[in-house]
Amino acid sequence: MSMYDIIKHKRDGRELTPEELTEFVAGFSEGSIPDYQAAALCMAIFYQGMTSRETARFTWEMAVSGDMIDLSAIPGTTVDKHSTGGVGDKTTFVCGPIVASCGVPVAKMSGRGLGHTGGTLDKLESIPGLSIELANERFFEIVREIGIAVIGQSANLVPADKKLYALRDVTATVDSVPLIASSIMSKKIAAGSDCILLDVKCGSGAFMKTPEAAIELAQEMVAIGTQVGRRCAALITDMDQPLGMAIGNSLEVIEALDVLKGKGPADLTRICVELAANMLVLAEVDELPECRRLAQAQIDNGHAFEKFEQMVAAQGGDTRVLHDTSLFAQPQLQRVVSATSDGWIYSMDTELCGRASVELGAGRRTKEESIDYAAGIVLQAKTGSHVAAGDPIATLYASHERQLDEAAELLTQAIVISQEQPVVPPHFFARVTEQGVETYDEA
Amino acid sequence: MSMYDIIKHKRDGRELTPEELTEFVAGFSEGSIPDYQAAALCMAIFYQGMTSRETARFTWEMAVSGDMIDLSAIPGTTVDKHSTGGVGDKTTFVCGPIVASCGVPVAKMSGRGLGHTGGTLDKLESIPGLSIELANERFFEIVREIGIAVIGQSANLVPADKKLYALRDVTATVDSVPLIASSIMSKKIAAGSDCILLDVKCGSGAFMKTPEAAIELAQEMVAIGTQVGRRCAALITDMDQPLGMAIGNSLEVIEALDVLKGKGPADLTRICVELAANMLVLAEVDELPECRRLAQAQIDNGHAFEKFEQMVAAQGGDTRVLHDTSLFAQPQLQRVVSATSDGWIYSMDTELCGRASVELGAGRRTKEESIDYAAGIVLQAKTGSHVAAGDPIATLYASHERQLDEAAELLTQAIVISQEQPVVPPHFFARVTEQGVETYDEA
Repeated sequence: MSMYDIIKHKRDGRELTPEELTEFVAGFSEGSIPDYQAAALCMAIFYQGMTSRETARFTWEMAVSGDMIDLSAIPGTTVDKHSTGGVGDKTTFVCGPIVASCGVPVAKMSGRGLGHTGGTLDKLESIPGLSIELANERFFEIVREIGIAVIGQSANLVPADKKLYALRDVTATVDSVPLIASSIMSKKIAAGSDCILLDVKCGSGAFMKTPEAAIELAQEMVAIGTQVGRRCAALITDMDQPLGMAIGNSLEVIEALDVLKGKGPADLTRICVELAANMLVLAEVDELPECRRLAQAQIDNGHAFEKFEQMVAAQGGDTRVLHDTSLFAQPQLQRVVSATSDGWIYSMDTELCGRASVELGAGRRTKEESIDYAAGIVLQAKTGSHVAAGDPIATLYASHERQLDEAAELLTQAIVISQEQPVVPPHFFARVTEQGVETYDEA
Repeated sequence: MSMYDIIKHKRDGRELTPEELTEFVAGFSEGSIPDYQAAALCMAIFYQGMTSRETARFTWEMAVSGDMIDLSAIPGTTVDKHSTGGVGDKTTFVCGPIVASCGVPVAKMSGRGLGHTGGTLDKLESIPGLSIELANERFFEIVREIGIAVIGQSANLVPADKKLYALRDVTATVDSVPLIASSIMSKKIAAGSDCILLDVKCGSGAFMKTPEAAIELAQEMVAIGTQVGRRCAALITDMDQPLGMAIGNSLEVIEALDVLKGKGPADLTRICVELAANMLVLAEVDELPECRRLAQAQIDNGHAFEKFEQMVAAQGGDTRVLHDTSLFAQPQLQRVVSATSDGWIYSMDTELCGRASVELGAGRRTKEESIDYAAGIVLQAKTGSHVAAGDPIATLYASHERQLDEAAELLTQAIVISQEQPVVPPHFFARVTEQGVETYDEA
């Protein structure tokens, strides 16, 4: 069996055997299979796809290419949540503490932001003193003691994916559902949790533009997780407008704190409760309606906030900022963006909103760029809001006037005001489990 | 414009612009575009194809990546013939001299054999003393003086194709009609002849297995040639059995000499006359029936043989062997392969016949192997022949018993004897010109 034959088999639409997949991932990972052969295979996969069995095996081989985090030292059923990336998504800071406060351990490894989507690690680091670089032993210890910790991925987590993704990124082979699914799931599987709730986003700010495309990706990921012995479900959620009102690192943490304190926006609170409830269901705590009540109760009784505070403290963060958010680093400049006409906010190009926040300094255009934790956007109106000409619709925060100029232009472009009232879609479109796809009922 | 966008455009089925094709070929050729991006593009082309306009431009960019041979110092309309590769194909040694003896110059650059097909250069070098490595000036001089010379391709002929073909060979992207067509035509265009007759073979010994596939390739090649201003036509010919009776270097030259002397096999003679006539038609010497008569006359009156003799002399070869073929290097061993049963020779797996000749030492398995010029096969029967058990069907020539053992086994496997009489297909299936495809009428 040679790499040439592996490429040819896939090119001609054949299902690769487990041995072929092992050979490819191991060979590519160690460098005996050159990039040009891997690139040809990725392009063949782009056209021919992979069966569910192939994708699961491929993912597993990727996962075992580096460290496999062993969470067995943590008692109980560990649960993880993964979002496919959006704008303004601070739900982890609410769901994680809710779930942990219910006694279900959350040992989470997260990534940094790149492009128009923010990263959980960057947001956490906006809390002064907080470290996301902990040794695995300390990480396990915190999770055992208080039930939750969020750290950066170990350098050797799925090196095969790191190498393959870099190659796909320059060979126009990113847009392949089995390759996207295996890339995400390999990292989740290596990170060790027993249960994985996937938040697969769709819309103008997401990689998948339609619910149908998101469902396809979710099915692929749930099938992978299930085949390698993890409990796995996915929620298909809206990313056709930013999540909540805040976009930017400390701005998002502050909004999450509002939710944890029971004074956050109603829709964002409901979304966090729903996600947390689904995590609890995966961990077999109870049925969904009971888990929903339980999750809401953990906000109402302050336990979720306390859990977040404990985590921040354990990771070396200054907990005073959680009580007095004026202690976060403050932005130097601000500017209000106003409505240019009367009407309904008809749509928000969410990728453009994300790019506006990057222009402000809240994100990175290249891996090397540093982040301005205080920069970002606070929206005053969202899709479906009625505004009058001159009404403020967003406030921008940054350190340089030039950044405000560029972001204001992008945001004005992103937000469409119309005489027609839009139909605002539900946040949850569907739930995907091993059993199939069901319309989501947020009863 | 970046290589990423070029790959993505082709991936999504778009026609690449002339600028994109220039950028790819130039960048790949000089090394600024890495192999992995070129491999991804080739796989995308495998699936999406290229338009006739794209293929022509791509071919031209490849051609100009190295030396463009300028034949303008040679008076008259130069004509070249290219075969897509077969087993036992010695027609160049007959057609070339016929055409040259009619006053149409033939300045030919040929390649070596690799795999199951033989190479013109290797066959020529079986003539003692003959050199195929001549400086371009000497090459032009010989063509000007006697009308014909055959040399090896200059080292810098279409370096982009050399590099790209090596990459396609290891990434399962060889089997793409536009890429095959552009690879062949880039070399023919760079080699400078005004007219190019393509002999596109089909059947068990050819790259293209069916006449339909061969026609598709031929149409692509003729379209390329025409678009870059060359006169171009293709004949679709049979390679479902070896051409003539001899396979092997000096054995094939000897058979060609028989044809030039007017005592060759009738079918091979007819094929050579037909090819030569089509070359003369391209050079606008006359209409096809007249060119056929002219070509046959050049054999009958001995002028074609004389022309070949002049060429051999000019290239330093020992012309005595042309008159007394026992002066060629003689094989050390021989073995007769006999029919195992009574019946008709129903089919000959021509690729296997070619591989048998390679086993005997007549060809190379790797570029580095040397060749035994005396080795090969002389067939005593071909498809459609009736044989009795024990009748000799072929004689094998080699230097080692082990080679004879292996080749005898392959040849026995290749030749199928049946109680059913086969329908022997015509040698010429179709002619492809700029105007379209016509059934070939060998009237």
